[in-house]
Amino acid sequence: MRSESDTPAFRDGDIDLETRVDDLVERMTLAEKAGQVTGTWGGNFRHENDVDDLKTAISEAHVGAAAPFGWGSGITRDPAEAAAIVNELQRHAMEETRLGIPLLFNVDAVHGHAYITGATVFPNGLGAAATWDPEGVEKAASVTASEVRATGAHQNYSPTTDVARDPRWGRAFETFGESPHLVGELVAAKVRGYQGSGVGDPEGVVATAKHFPAYSEPERGEDAAPVDVSEYKLRNTFVAPFERALSEDVRSVMPSYNSINGEPSHGSVSLLRSLLRDELGFDGHVVSDWDGIRHLFEDHGTAHNHASAVKQARQAGLDIASVGHIEHADRVIELVEDGDLTEDALDTSVRRVLRLKFELGLFEEPFVDEEAVTETLGNDDHREVARQSARDSMTLLKNDDLLPLSGDEDVFVGGPNADDMVHQLGGWSVDDDDGIPGETILEAISASTSGTVTHAQGTTLNETMDVDDAVEKAAAADVAVLALGEGWYLHEFGPAEQAGVETGEWPTRTGLRLSAPQRELVQRVHETDTPVVGVLVTGRPLVVDWMAEHVPAILMAYFPGTEGGVAIAETLFGENDPSGRLPITIPSSTDALPQTFDHLVHPTPIGDHEHPDSYDPLYPFGHGLSYTTFETDDLAVAYDTDADAVTVEVDVSNVGDRTGTETVQIYARQLQASRVRPNRSLVGFDRVTVEPDETVRATVELPMAAFEYHVPNVGTILEPGPYRIDIDDHSETVELPEDA
Amino acid sequence: MRSESDTPAFRDGDIDLETRVDDLVERMTLAEKAGQVTGTWGGNFRHENDVDDLKTAISEAHVGAAAPFGWGSGITRDPAEAAAIVNELQRHAMEETRLGIPLLFNVDAVHGHAYITGATVFPNGLGAAATWDPEGVEKAASVTASEVRATGAHQNYSPTTDVARDPRWGRAFETFGESPHLVGELVAAKVRGYQGSGVGDPEGVVATAKHFPAYSEPERGEDAAPVDVSEYKLRNTFVAPFERALSEDVRSVMPSYNSINGEPSHGSVSLLRSLLRDELGFDGHVVSDWDGIRHLFEDHGTAHNHASAVKQARQAGLDIASVGHIEHADRVIELVEDGDLTEDALDTSVRRVLRLKFELGLFEEPFVDEEAVTETLGNDDHREVARQSARDSMTLLKNDDLLPLSGDEDVFVGGPNADDMVHQLGGWSVDDDDGIPGETILEAISASTSGTVTHAQGTTLNETMDVDDAVEKAAAADVAVLALGEGWYLHEFGPAEQAGVETGEWPTRTGLRLSAPQRELVQRVHETDTPVVGVLVTGRPLVVDWMAEHVPAILMAYFPGTEGGVAIAETLFGENDPSGRLPITIPSSTDALPQTFDHLVHPTPIGDHEHPDSYDPLYPFGHGLSYTTFETDDLAVAYDTDADAVTVEVDVSNVGDRTGTETVQIYARQLQASRVRPNRSLVGFDRVTVEPDETVRATVELPMAAFEYHVPNVGTILEPGPYRIDIDDHSETVELPEDA
Repeated sequence: MRSESDTPAFRDGDIDLETRVDDLVERMTLAEKAGQVTGTWGGNFRHENDVDDLKTAISEAHVGAAAPFGWGSGITRDPAEAAAIVNELQRHAMEETRLGIPLLFNVDAVHGHAYITGATVFPNGLGAAATWDPEGVEKAASVTASEVRATGAHQNYSPTTDVARDPRWGRAFETFGESPHLVGELVAAKVRGYQGSGVGDPEGVVATAKHFPAYSEPERGEDAAPVDVSEYKLRNTFVAPFERALSEDVRSVMPSYNSINGEPSHGSVSLLRSLLRDELGFDGHVVSDWDGIRHLFEDHGTAHNHASAVKQARQAGLDIASVGHIEHADRVIELVEDGDLTEDALDTSVRRVLRLKFELGLFEEPFVDEEAVTETLGNDDHREVARQSARDSMTLLKNDDLLPLSGDEDVFVGGPNADDMVHQLGGWSVDDDDGIPGETILEAISASTSGTVTHAQGTTLNETMDVDDAVEKAAAADVAVLALGEGWYLHEFGPAEQAGVETGEWPTRTGLRLSAPQRELVQRVHETDTPVVGVLVTGRPLVVDWMAEHVPAILMAYFPGTEGGVAIAETLFGENDPSGRLPITIPSSTDALPQTFDHLVHPTPIGDHEHPDSYDPLYPFGHGLSYTTFETDDLAVAYDTDADAVTVEVDVSNVGDRTGTETVQIYARQLQASRVRPNRSLVGFDRVTVEPDETVRATVELPMAAFEYHVPNVGTILEPGPYRIDIDDHSETVELPEDA
Repeated sequence: MRSESDTPAFRDGDIDLETRVDDLVERMTLAEKAGQVTGTWGGNFRHENDVDDLKTAISEAHVGAAAPFGWGSGITRDPAEAAAIVNELQRHAMEETRLGIPLLFNVDAVHGHAYITGATVFPNGLGAAATWDPEGVEKAASVTASEVRATGAHQNYSPTTDVARDPRWGRAFETFGESPHLVGELVAAKVRGYQGSGVGDPEGVVATAKHFPAYSEPERGEDAAPVDVSEYKLRNTFVAPFERALSEDVRSVMPSYNSINGEPSHGSVSLLRSLLRDELGFDGHVVSDWDGIRHLFEDHGTAHNHASAVKQARQAGLDIASVGHIEHADRVIELVEDGDLTEDALDTSVRRVLRLKFELGLFEEPFVDEEAVTETLGNDDHREVARQSARDSMTLLKNDDLLPLSGDEDVFVGGPNADDMVHQLGGWSVDDDDGIPGETILEAISASTSGTVTHAQGTTLNETMDVDDAVEKAAAADVAVLALGEGWYLHEFGPAEQAGVETGEWPTRTGLRLSAPQRELVQRVHETDTPVVGVLVTGRPLVVDWMAEHVPAILMAYFPGTEGGVAIAETLFGENDPSGRLPITIPSSTDALPQTFDHLVHPTPIGDHEHPDSYDPLYPFGHGLSYTTFETDDLAVAYDTDADAVTVEVDVSNVGDRTGTETVQIYARQLQASRVRPNRSLVGFDRVTVEPDETVRATVELPMAAFEYHVPNVGTILEPGPYRIDIDDHSETVELPEDA
């Protein structure tokens, strides 16, 4: 118990940070150090940890970080209670431990502080990516940071920096899609938004780039299954966005659960130390993904007990065991005492944690203002940001002159996602709709037409309800809006009791088609001759080939968040022109996976004509319609010696009759290279709003970095020679000189 | 033109080989050297090369190797004509070139000399692998070698050493399946069979391990598409069988068409030089796969013209450009003259080729006995070897008390593969049935029952014919045998004009289900209540889930060769007890690929129960029924210090009423390891023939190599600790000591 007469140097905010860190580390016992690199959690997951348990871990094991809320099974969803818990635990740490080191609080606020009642909830990853709008993503992250910080937490386990290369994967919805470039730009924006002016910004939170280095192309699409990947692909596809995050000074990195080429990330010296720290220069802290350390012996088989797993992870350079609890701290103490871990190595991690806490100002301002929470969470300004994100994410896949609706139609609304806030938010949000702000699709449509709105769900995600009722009502309407797709899930479409779907029932990793009941619903409604708008509320790109052939309009809505219902209604009724573009390929079947727009070129030994196309999507990456019509022309591409950049210019004309926003997508292909290169790579993009009959000359300056790539054992290189630049069906070749 | 008075040292068979090589190389001009490392072909593929063209290439460009027959579009199929062409060209080379260096003749006799009329044709790769019988595979290769040699050729572009990890791939049928261990053992057997007592064996041919190093898990299953693979997997899964081939002194290696991690194999220093030669110690010659060199600039984009492609390949260590023709030799000359390729490097390749020719005895015996050809090809002894291979490959997937048939049934025979010798042989065989020995399934069944045999094809591979006729005949029969599946194809299911199937029509890489017409046929015949035996003549494991659920018996016959019809009939009627075991998984759908029995272990963060099984096949690797019943018991596993081996013993009892052959399959799992290891690996196997009521104690000694694995940057290691050994549902753990 700390003596009040003791006012040590580390408490003096005027002296420099490193001196404070040194002073504090010097005072710490081994046990205090072990605790400082250990986190714990509060809530109910497999067993319960309540506030008293957390206090015990703080006093007895000196744990330095805690997650009592802001995740799936936390202690509370109530914002005021969350703030109160922070203050209570913080007070406990300050007053009931010898050194009074404040705690670091962590949350999973990946698309808004969505485990807290009343928070603003944004579109999940894929939806956010569909905006192709770094500014919007930054703004959303900034709102999230302020809401997280209002409840007293300091670190957010976001952004997901994974590049989704297998659409079957249950976490595809959390990502910014399949393009390393697009993911990188949006991750960078999200880091900026979270961290604000930097660590210490009172409205910012520490961002966590996850899951390093490659999680998102697991074998079979199975969550946490191994990733086997060459160094060439690892670096150019998966690590590149992490490098972007690092360039924005992301302060934390979380390893992936899975193994990479036989090495579990959580225990890999080559990944966490040689690559992340030595080569990429990361100097923040590495925090475990939940029980990632235990998996080393319980699942991966690379450790033989908990102690050897802890040793492996710490030798690899892991700093904080996020849910290590007392057991982890105990193992660390034993390892140091037994000579299996040096105290120097431990000190390195301790310093990283303390440095962060000093920078965050926690020694000066450990508490949060409990009164201010409710006025921050979900306020009108915040929700407007989310509404704009949701609007901009709307991706119109198909429209045979049905949309926009005029606003006086009789509308039938059906499907499992028409009136379900939980499904609308998707995973990494609360799993019941109690207290969620916002409107469902049904509610928002009801407010948008002067005609009659009827409703029948027709089917759950995977079980038929009263389809006849739905068909009857649809037949009587002018238009039928069917909100289909997936629901709330985490990881491998579970946990079953929360997702409301038994393991093995759709959605499953093998099922990219809608469930049979949903397909039946849309087919039967289609047969009534009432035109159908399919609205896809989904985390994954679904194989909707039947719909693509038969129904006149399909709107991809992703998991659009609290404001999604309104954004969808605004889009259907034309108040919002859809400007979302697919950040991930919608494949024509699961038979042809992987289907990515940027596959490597290859020979066809018995003739090109003997191979069906390598890339044969239902809707390609980048696809998305508007209610107006754009034409591009006069593509000009030039290498600019002075700027050391390639300038790309193109005319974008709006030849339709309403204002719209086009996303100019710039693809490049290196025609000669020392390695085989992608068929095409996205290297730049620009959102351009164009008035009717207006032509805007879009100009994008591509830095040389856009043409660089990583060659193992060589490094990141830029090669001279011809590069083909494509925008739509325009193509120009630019020659990069030797000294570019 | 060689002067007869000149009798140089290299012609003296009594002096040692290296002296002869030195002497000859010293005499050669640059052009002669360039020709010696260049091959050419005769036939009609895109354009025609006739015998005169070959002679021109020999006299003008000094080409050293030729393939005028023994491949798909060769000059002749006639064995006597083939031998005559060899002698004519050989005479031309001996008499019409200055040095009179004899030619090396190459063929694609991958499952018998199947492009030559009258040759013995064995089951294709997967069928051969289903025998799990190295002795049988060796015997078959030995027969093939003698038939190839009888026509005058010296090198066979076989065995395929690829491990098929994607069942969609159009070349899966050429492989020995998905287990690196099984592939390795059978490749080793095939090399022994081809090379006989070694190069110089007058009945042997030079074996060619192909396609180095990893071809068989192309992206999307598309032929020649890139393989992205970690060093860990590359070595343990793909390269391991090449190491087995090298351990049997395979004399030639062929690179893969595709790129590995961005490096086209044909131009890769790290693969062909560092790995193959420096690390694995290969000292034979590397021969291009057809136009693999041209692909470097035409497709891969790593070279900018033919010359730079030739330079890239030669710098990587490629020795013979198999179809380089005059153009390749010209490029080599220019490269040396321009200083882009050293003459020393060229000499290294020239020496390899000449050394082989001396060893083959070609300078002493350049000609082939034209009279002996016909008595060798397809003689009774040879065909009996093929018939036994075909019998042993028969894999009974399902049998609900229907088989064996008694021999007095009225049998309906239908399906596209019932009476089609070309389909029965599969790819890498002639594409019409003119002169093929052997019986079709229909012919062999007709000879096997005393009942009435009716026939109607019902459907082609992918087009409906007169199904009603088939159904009517089937309804009248006691049993319906439907021979379904795939037909003759190469690479990506083409070439269209030979395969008789348009590009994009089934079979395709995305289609592992039978075509719709075939599914309709089996469903309609099944509805007649006549019990159906599905016989699958196919190169790939087909998703026959409907059949698995509905029809009483399914026999996997692969592409069984000339004797396949008889082997199938013998199996259906019980003369042969089916002893084949699947060398590749039959997946339950294409949605869950990859599905391999030896996938790596992994965590399931939100609980095992939240994941459907990682491996969920329709029929697993190793599956296959017999007409008798085997039981295994009393598994004993021990590490034997003296032998430095693990001895595995198990009782195999035949509790049925007829003699049968069981394949004891030994799987191992390393429970603790420095890398994540497979769920289970096949480490040994043994075919055991057991009489009714007999129990045989099968004993297999597993060398320590069975437990070794390759760790990048470390090497091949054997780790102490616990290993679980499984046979059927028996399991024992053995501890390997530190010094094992």
